[in-house]
This record gives sequence, structure tokens and C-alpha cells, in this order.
Amino acid sequence: MVKVSVLGATGYTGQELVRMLALHPEVALVGLGTQSYVDRAYVDVYPHLRQIVDLTCRQTDDPFLIEQAEVIFLALPHGLSVPYAEKGLAQGKKVIDLGADFRLENPEVYRAWYKKTGPTEELLKQAVYGLPEINRELIKKTKLVANPGCYPTTAILALYPLFQEKLLDPSFLIIDSKSGVSGAGRSLKTTSLYSEANEDFKVYGLPHHRHAPEIEQELTKAAGTEVTVTFTPHLVPVTRGMMSTIYTRPLITDIDKIEEVYREYYSEEPFVRIYPQGQYPQTKWVQGTNFCDLGFSFDARTQRLIIISVIDNLTKGASGQAIQNLNLMCGFEETLGLPQVALFP
Amino acid sequence: MVKVSVLGATGYTGQELVRMLALHPEVALVGLGTQSYVDRAYVDVYPHLRQIVDLTCRQTDDPFLIEQAEVIFLALPHGLSVPYAEKGLAQGKKVIDLGADFRLENPEVYRAWYKKTGPTEELLKQAVYGLPEINRELIKKTKLVANPGCYPTTAILALYPLFQEKLLDPSFLIIDSKSGVSGAGRSLKTTSLYSEANEDFKVYGLPHHRHAPEIEQELTKAAGTEVTVTFTPHLVPVTRGMMSTIYTRPLITDIDKIEEVYREYYSEEPFVRIYPQGQYPQTKWVQGTNFCDLGFSFDARTQRLIIISVIDNLTKGASGQAIQNLNLMCGFEETLGLPQVALFP
Amino acid sequence: MVKVSVLGATGYTGQELVRMLALHPEVALVGLGTQSYVDRAYVDVYPHLRQIVDLTCRQTDDPFLIEQAEVIFLALPHGLSVPYAEKGLAQGKKVIDLGADFRLENPEVYRAWYKKTGPTEELLKQAVYGLPEINRELIKKTKLVANPGCYPTTAILALYPLFQEKLLDPSFLIIDSKSGVSGAGRSLKTTSLYSEANEDFKVYGLPHHRHAPEIEQELTKAAGTEVTVTFTPHLVPVTRGMMSTIYTRPLITDIDKIEEVYREYYSEEPFVRIYPQGQYPQTKWVQGTNFCDLGFSFDARTQRLIIISVIDNLTKGASGQAIQNLNLMCGFEETLGLPQVALFP
Amino acid sequence: MVKVSVLGATGYTGQELVRMLALHPEVALVGLGTQSYVDRAYVDVYPHLRQIVDLTCRQTDDPFLIEQAEVIFLALPHGLSVPYAEKGLAQGKKVIDLGADFRLENPEVYRAWYKKTGPTEELLKQAVYGLPEINRELIKKTKLVANPGCYPTTAILALYPLFQEKLLDPSFLIIDSKSGVSGAGRSLKTTSLYSEANEDFKVYGLPHHRHAPEIEQELTKAAGTEVTVTFTPHLVPVTRGMMSTIYTRPLITDIDKIEEVYREYYSEEPFVRIYPQGQYPQTKWVQGTNFCDLGFSFDARTQRLIIISVIDNLTKGASGQAIQNLNLMCGFEETLGLPQVALFP
Repeated sequence: MVKVSVLGATGYTGQELVRMLALHPEVALVGLGTQSYVDRAYVDVYPHLRQIVDLTCRQTDDPFLIEQAEVIFLALPHGLSVPYAEKGLAQGKKVIDLGADFRLENPEVYRAWYKKTGPTEELLKQAVYGLPEINRELIKKTKLVANPGCYPTTAILALYPLFQEKLLDPSFLIIDSKSGVSGAGRSLKTTSLYSEANEDFKVYGLPHHRHAPEIEQELTKAAGTEVTVTFTPHLVPVTRGMMSTIYTRPLITDIDKIEEVYREYYSEEPFVRIYPQGQYPQTKWVQGTNFCDLGFSFDARTQRLIIISVIDNLTKGASGQAIQNLNLMCGFEETLGLPQVALFP
Repeated sequence: MVKVSVLGATGYTGQELVRMLALHPEVALVGLGTQSYVDRAYVDVYPHLRQIVDLTCRQTDDPFLIEQAEVIFLALPHGLSVPYAEKGLAQGKKVIDLGADFRLENPEVYRAWYKKTGPTEELLKQAVYGLPEINRELIKKTKLVANPGCYPTTAILALYPLFQEKLLDPSFLIIDSKSGVSGAGRSLKTTSLYSEANEDFKVYGLPHHRHAPEIEQELTKAAGTEVTVTFTPHLVPVTRGMMSTIYTRPLITDIDKIEEVYREYYSEEPFVRIYPQGQYPQTKWVQGTNFCDLGFSFDARTQRLIIISVIDNLTKGASGQAIQNLNLMCGFEETLGLPQVALFP
Repeated sequence: MVKVSVLGATGYTGQELVRMLALHPEVALVGLGTQSYVDRAYVDVYPHLRQIVDLTCRQTDDPFLIEQAEVIFLALPHGLSVPYAEKGLAQGKKVIDLGADFRLENPEVYRAWYKKTGPTEELLKQAVYGLPEINRELIKKTKLVANPGCYPTTAILALYPLFQEKLLDPSFLIIDSKSGVSGAGRSLKTTSLYSEANEDFKVYGLPHHRHAPEIEQELTKAAGTEVTVTFTPHLVPVTRGMMSTIYTRPLITDIDKIEEVYREYYSEEPFVRIYPQGQYPQTKWVQGTNFCDLGFSFDARTQRLIIISVIDNLTKGASGQAIQNLNLMCGFEETLGLPQVALFP
Repeated sequence: MVKVSVLGATGYTGQELVRMLALHPEVALVGLGTQSYVDRAYVDVYPHLRQIVDLTCRQTDDPFLIEQAEVIFLALPHGLSVPYAEKGLAQGKKVIDLGADFRLENPEVYRAWYKKTGPTEELLKQAVYGLPEINRELIKKTKLVANPGCYPTTAILALYPLFQEKLLDPSFLIIDSKSGVSGAGRSLKTTSLYSEANEDFKVYGLPHHRHAPEIEQELTKAAGTEVTVTFTPHLVPVTRGMMSTIYTRPLITDIDKIEEVYREYYSEEPFVRIYPQGQYPQTKWVQGTNFCDLGFSFDARTQRLIIISVIDNLTKGASGQAIQNLNLMCGFEETLGLPQVALFP
């Protein structure tokens, strides 16, 4: 049993970690850190976990949380992870950060998009971008994982094999993404109220959402040449679910090659499912699971390849992927504790 | 591994069985019966099970389904179970019927409410009402379980300990119940359309819903005297979830006794959770789980005891309870394959 | 054209007033008061009113709001209306209060339920309980209307004719009510977040909700003897809509009499619709309208009469009723500016 | 008062016509045609219209419907309108067709996309494409209006001024559209069930949706050169609402010119609202209204102009626009009977 703490345990991604870790057969949950609910029983904050989780919340900076755990999950707002990661690493712990602080390899890019200084270069170098389908071997060896953003997970899983195989024009990439409301977190905002979000949908973050450089970084590495993206996120009235509709220009004429490449890269992947041509995934088909489902369509009239990529934003888009990384870092079976059957209907 | 078939596998309760059985560590799913999708892959009907379930649907009356299985689940429309149950029993199989045909012990009552003749008395005598919290020992020994209705599950779990201990006036019982839309099944009805059910709620089945006699039968046995119920079901726009708000008149003045009795009956139950006074369960806290959560409040002004009982209508209200019965009938641990952590948020 | 101000214009009931007043052919909207959005254009707060409303928000206590208007709507949190009502009346204005401060005639009852001192008795005496179907003539003559609560509107319209005609047992009254989420207002609460309220339903306010004494006050007057209610409110995941399922014991055996009395009282009412026996209203059928729809069912087995009463909680339950009162106070046609066609589907 | 009939009155667009026409001050609704509910009261089909509409449904081909009306709305499934339009025109009536049969000017294109023969060329020549913002004067003079599709309404209103002014590259046009579920109509399909559509979103109609040629036809006319579109529709879990997120390549560098052109074309339009740069419309802000709201953003990094266009799919996307056309054809004020205040929240 590996001992685990979660810092930022009372937000939605924190809760999603706790929910799943509570059932993980190789994990003992030892500490839950929070700002707002210190000294309160976790089930007072999340009563659905009555008789499942019996821990009491601690202050985020309670040293217990790092000292008593072997693996530390950081589910904190962007910009707050660095000191906790440093402390964890200094004590020889494994750290998985669900925030953005270690995702961008270039500190200049971080500064440009986040308007603040990020981690030191030395720390950055230790961090591995935690997308197991790309970086599995590196993740197994590192002590610091930068868990990918939800939108980038949909985009990179859909695109990196095709860019790596030079099947797509790197100068043409439009990603129209849709997210469920839980992606906005549990903080109190008028726009997150039921009466506002219900029966509504909208665009947000135009024209420059912070997930764009993360997508570009990984796809540029795959393509071996600069990839620039037009990225437009939307909010859709579901609690969970994320879809990216991706518009690309293929450099080949034999479209069957697309499916071949996907199968070559993903047929052994436990959490990626490829749909046959003419079938497209729906968000509900991955609800509560750690799957990324991919489908695609070629529009011969306009010579564009459209790729549909769906995940559950809280699971493969955040906490499920983090547990997948835990499994790799700890030498467990990669699927341990991770749901593969959607809640349907 | 016990071999299992599901007849009526493409309705929502059938699908909920298949979803959960696919993960059950002691079950091998061997056959899926259906009327509408014969010879089609099950994942064509329910694509979220891609790479999880690879069976092809068979005609409901395909002899394979009974011959090759040791346990047969019947998730058929009311009135169709009898011949399949007879065949199963004749071949020495275990049968769990999720319909209403074996729930009412008195054939006259069945005829009065369903306007048709039910099973023979001989068959009826073999059937055990499959509420494990009441009939655990009988269920372990029988080969024919009548799985309770969803509304009766909420009502009987909330009330039978209190009636058994003579704490409630048997002449005063009002049950105001609310169900999610999946309770109406997957059949095509205008009232089940998204655009109709969304942003709406309504009463239905007034004044005489068929679940009333089932509730009365079990509570009358508990009370040792006739209990009659005013029962009003409503439809609420959620996919899953059921709540009964129950109005009763206590015969005692010490209300702490209520909680005591609940704890006495249920503290060892794996799927019943009692809330302390002043806290009330919400349907989302049991979403996807096999829990029945109970809370209560005493209105001193009017001397009425109000009990709140919630379940997931597809799980504890149907298929989860059926698997709980399977576990008992087969000597497995009672919680095997049954979710205890809700999908939240 | 009558000049109108709304104090508390940026909450949901305030917005609902503004929405409808903007189209009212006899109203000129002159002032909008708020705490949180002073000096901001109203369309910045509610962009759907772009090109419809071009006022800028003022501080709630800006004297302009009362001085420049002939009618003042108070859509403030409970307990804050008294000083504004006093100022308005002192300047000879008409005041319609959508809060609770003037609804309870007995100051002791107000103190017991609201834990504070309410208005002076002198002020209370001027207030008319603004349910037009009961108090139409008094409303026409008063300068101070206490607009009813949403739950009491459903309950009193369903019950006062039957209590007045002595058709119901005054010792037996259970009201199981369900409200849409907009009833909780626009203030920021975790329980009002989309991800929490969506796909959930729950009870709240047990065992003593503040709307109970308001219901009892009006029904006791109708019955001529004390009526006590068991009242249980629930939250249902729709934005708008409210239903009360009301359990009563009739003192008569000829149930047709119920419909007769309803028709006698309501056949000329522009905003009450009676459904024939066997048909029951749904909340969506009144969405956006000022209707209260009523249906009923007699359960001969248990001798109980069940009444279903539905409204849109923001319209007939608050702002629509307030405009109905404005029409009466100003001598306009009672239906002016009030929607009678639901938004459906 | 002009006498009006609606054929196909019991589908959602038919109902939306009836809802609004019932309040139209210059319209007398005389006949409602249907296939499924002949001889039934319309309020049995749509009970929310109790006391508002008291007509009884007639068979679609009942001659009364055309003979007794001056204006005929055809809200029929695609391919069924031609004979009714012919009869109406032969009797000198005005005809507004909400289906697709008269929208495509080129019979070859119709055949290619609909796999059947459309109307005669003679009939086609009489038809005016009923987008008032483009064809107002032609609509005033014609007797046959082809009411635009919902998706094309969002796309064409967003784009035709910019193509007409040669501001956009005609070879680059991607439209990612999202529709509420009511767009699928009231017919019974598994995918339209609440339990399926709720908490889900998905793409459909890939790669060739029938609305693409309609969009191309009108934009090609505006551009004076061929415009080809990549068009991807999605289904989003709301009842009403439609958004198109449109990706284009501007031929100019001064982006303020975009807003100027929009203001030049639309500042006098009663049903088009332009948002200032940095603000984007949400679907709920037009819920129940006849507005098309437009916002846009220039992504300087990728040199792409993104336009957001939203409508209520049943109102400006179908029935509201049809009534706008009625107003033009009959010489009424264009906004008569058309809602301009959204139902919010």
C-alpha cells in the first residue's frame, strides 16, 4: 500500500481524486489538504462519501501532508504548486501536479501566458509531461509529473500520432472544444450558477485561452516543426464531458492511412478507443471513465479531416489521468483503480 | 465463475445489469436476450461498452440463454416473465425476476391491479421477495427471487423497522415519491422525449399506482395489521435518482427511539446509510451506487414524522439489488461487483 | 404611463420584474436600485436585455428611486423593506413589497419565525396581502401590497375555496412542495452551483420553513378555524417551476362538489386554470406565464383528496403577481403586460 | 385580421407557430392540420395552450385548411410541401414553407442532396428565400416564401455582409454549429429520449449535412464567387438554442472594419444585435425571442476571424422568422407578435 496525500482536496478535481483513490486497492489515503474546510470531516464537505472516507481536512500547508505520504497530488489553483512540489521532492516524495505550473517547458512562454514567473528551470527539467500514451517510460522514472490540462488531453491524443507521421499540414489547425460545467471548478461564480448555466451554451476565453500553448508545445514536438492552433473553448450544460472537434488538412489522399496510424499507436492502449469511420464518440459514452474516444471524418468536398475526441474532463481530463500516472510511477498495473465502464444512461 | 444470462438486456435495467455484471469478478456473462436487436452486437446498441462487452444479442426465447447459464436475470416488461421462470426452474437454474410478476403473494391482488392472471400458486410459493435487508436468509436458499420495485424499495426500507417495532400508526401513511426519467425505460414515448421532460416536473399514475399493493403487502407483514398507503409518484428531470418523502404519525413521543431502531436494524447493512437528525440525503449522493440513504425529521407542531429515503432507481431500485440477490444466492460476498462510491459531481 | 422603480433589480425576481415591465404598455421604468452593480449599465448585468432596457443601476438608497417613481417595487432580501416602504408611503407613492416583511399580520408570529422585529403595527395595518384572487378589492384601494410568497401562492389558491366552503378537515393538511432552483436567487452558494444542483434533488428547510405560517394565516381565515400545516419543500433541477402536492381529508363524499366549487370561485379568474378530473398540470405548461394551474384526484381507498397546484415560481410566484397587483392598484386591465402563453417546449 | 392555417401544426415548429400566432394582434388562426391527432382538440396535444387555443385538429389534406385561410404555413417534413403550396397558390393564397423544398434554387442541387425530385422550376421561380435581412423587398411582393433553415440563418446572417463587402477569403470557411434538442422535432427516436440526450453531447450528420448547400448558395451569391463550407453540426442538451462558431480568414488587416460593416448592415434591423468586440452572445440571451445575436474575435496569432452567431432554433431559426415573413407579406409592422425579451433565467 502506498500512502497518498491530496492537497486541494475539496475542489472538484480533488474530490474526483479522493473518490477514486478511496477504492484503489494499492493506495492508503492519509491526508487531505484544503483552505476552506480545515478541521472539518471530509464527509461534511462531500456527504456522498459517508462511510467511505473518514479523514478530517487539514490546512494545505500542514507538514503532515507531505511527511506522511509517499505520493503527493497537488490539485491547487494555478500558480500555487511550486513550493509544495519543492518540499515534496526535497523529502524524496513523488509529486503529481494537476495544475499548469510545470506543463510549459519554456519559462518565457509561461510568463507570457500566465503573467508571472513559474518554477525554476532546474525544477522544470525534472518535470515530465504526464500523458502516458506519449511519455510512459519517462513517467515511470520521474518523481515529478505535470498532469496535462483537459483540453490538451483531447487535442494531443487526437493529433500527435498524425503529426508525428507527417500526415497533417502543421499550418492548419482549428480546435473547437466544448466542456462541461464542472471544468470551472467549485468556486463561487455567477456564471457557474445552475440558473445561469442551465439551458445555455456559450463561448469563452476568446481569443487566447491558456491551454493553447500547451497544445502547441506537444504537437510541435511531434511534428518537428512549429504548429500553431486556433483554439476556441465553449461551455455546455452538462456536469461532466469534454469534446474537441478538430479541423485539419491532411497531406495524404489515402484516408485509410489515418485509421491505420491510429490503430498502430493506440491498439494496445488501455484508455484510448478508436471508432471505425462513420461512427463518432459521444461524451456520455465515457462519463466517469478514464477513456479518450476518437472518431474522424474526411470531408472530400473541402479536403478537410475532422477529428472528434471526447473525454470525461474530471477523469481522463484530470484526476483519472493523475492516477494513471501514479500507477506508472509506483509500478502498479496501469488500469488499477480506474473505471472503464461509463455510467449510462 | 458463475454463468449468467440476461433476458431483456437492451432496456435500461437490462443495460444496468450488463454494465455491472461485466465487472463482476465471479460472473461470466454468456447470453443477452432481446426482442428488437437480435443478431446485432451489443455495443451497437450501447456503444459505451465498446471493448468491454463483446456479445451478440439473441432472441429472448433462444433456448441457449437458459441452457447455458446458471443464473437467469429477467428484465422483461411486466407479465412476460412466467414462462421463462418456469423453464429456468425446470432446468434447475436460479432465476431473478426484475418485473412485477412474482412480487405479489396474493393472486387476487395481482389480478386486481394488473388485470390479468399471474403465475400459478405453486410457482408463487417458491418466490422470495428479494429485499435482502428483510429476507436475506430466504434469498440464500431460494431459486426464484422477485426483485422489488424501485418505489417499494425506498418505502419498505424506510418503514418496515418502524412498523415492526410498532412505532407508527398503521392507519396513517402518505408517500410522496419522485423518480428520475430513466424509470420510464427506453421505450419510445412522447413524454420521455428530452424536449418534453427537460425543465418540467409532474405527477403521474394518480390515484392508483401499481406499486402501492407491493408496499402495503410488505408493511402489513411488518406491522402485523393492515397498512394502507396514499402513494403519489412524480417525474423529475434527472436521468437517475429516486426519493420518497414519507409522512407518518409516530405512536411514541421519544423521537430518539426512531434513530435507535434504524441503527439496530441497519448498522451492519452494507447498503443502507442512516443520517443523523437534521441531515437529509440527496439523490446525487447515491448516483450509480447500490445505497439506500435514510434521513428523518419530526415536526413537533403537527406531530408528524417525515422520512426521506433515496436510491438510484436503476441500481438499488432494480439491477444493483438484483446483483445483491445474485451474490446471496450464489454464496458470494454480498457487495461483490456493486458500486459504493457515487459519481459526483 | 405610470413611472416605476425597482429596488433590488439585479436579483432574479428583480430581473423578472424588469423583463416584464419593459414590455408593459402603461409603464415607464425610471429607476433600478442595486447593491452590487451601482453605476453599471443594467445590460452589463443582464445582457439578454440589450436594446430593451437602457437604464444604469443606482444605489438602493438613492432618493431618486422613490422620488421619481409613482410605484415602487421592493425586491429586497427579507428584513430590508421597511424603511423603503415607509419612505415611499410618506411621499404618497404606491409600494409593492416582494419580500416577507408585510405578509404576516401578527407581529408575534413574524418575530417567532424571523427572529427579529418586523414593521410597526400601524404600517402592518396598511398592508394588503396581495393575492388578487382573494383580495382584489382591497388591493385596488391600498398603497401597500405584501406580495405573497411562491409556496403560499400554490397552497392558498388550491385550498382557500375548499376551506371557505368547509369541504376539508382543518386538522389534516400536508403540503409536499417542489421548487426550481431560481427560487434560491442569484446569490452565490455552493448548493446553487450547476454541478451540484444538476442531476440532483433534495428536501430542505425541514421541519420548519418560513412559508408555513403564511399558509396557515390565510387558510385559517378561510376556514374560520385554525389550520395547521405540515410543509416540506424540495429543490428540483429546473430553472423555473413550482408544484405543490397537497394531501387533505374531505368532509364530503360527493367529490364532484370539489370541481364545482373550484369553477364557482375561479371560472372568471384570468390566471387560474382548473383541470378536469384525471388530468394534472405540469410545471412546464405554465413556464414564463402568470398562471396557477390546478388539478385534483380523490383516492377512494384512503379517502384522501390530493390536489396538484403549479406555477412559475418567478412569475405567479413573485414578479408576475406583483405586476398583477400593480395593474389592480393603478386601475389597468388586470392582465396587462402579463404572459399567458408558456414557452414550450 | 388575416386568416391563417398551419399544416403540420403538432410538431415543434408547428406548435411554436401556433403559440405565437395565438397572440398576434392581426391574425385569426382558423385551421390546424396534422396527421396523428385528427379530430382531437389541440389542447389535448399541447395542454399548455388550455384557454388560449380552442381549435380541433384537421387532417392535413382537409381542403378547409387552404380554402378558409389567406396565409398558409407549411410545417411539414421535407418533401411533402409541394402539393400544398401548389394548391394554395392556385387559390391565390400566400404560402410560407418552413421545410426545405423551396430553399435550393438549383433543382440539380436539390436532387443531389435530397435524393428526390423537387418542385417544378416554374414553382421554384416564384419562391423567395425568406431571410428578411437580405430579401425584405422581395418577400413583400411574393406569394411563396421558402423559410430558411435554422443553421443557415445563423451562418448567413453572420457572413453575408462580410462576403458581400469582400472582406473574407471565400476558400476558407468552417462552421462548427451546436443545436438544442428541439431541433430534432417531436418524432419518436431513441436519440431524442431524455435519458439519452441529457448529460451528453455529440456530433452528427458528418460529413455532409443538408444545410451545407443552402449556406453555400446564399454566400456564393453574396461573394460573387463560389463559397464552399465545412459544416459540422452538434447536439447540445438544451431544449432551445443554436450557436454557430464560424472560422474565417479576413482579407483585411483593419479589423474594426468588420464591426463597421456589421453596423452598416444591421443597425436598423429589429432582430439582429451586434456585440462590441470582446463580448460574445450566449444562447440563453435569445431564448424564446426572434433575435440573431452576433459577436466576433480576431485571433492575431493565427490571423483568423471567429464569429459567434446565436439564435433560438425554433423562433428565428424557424417559426419566428416565418411570422416575420408573414408580417412583411401582409404589410404589418415587421415585429408584430414577435418576442424581443428572452425568458431569463
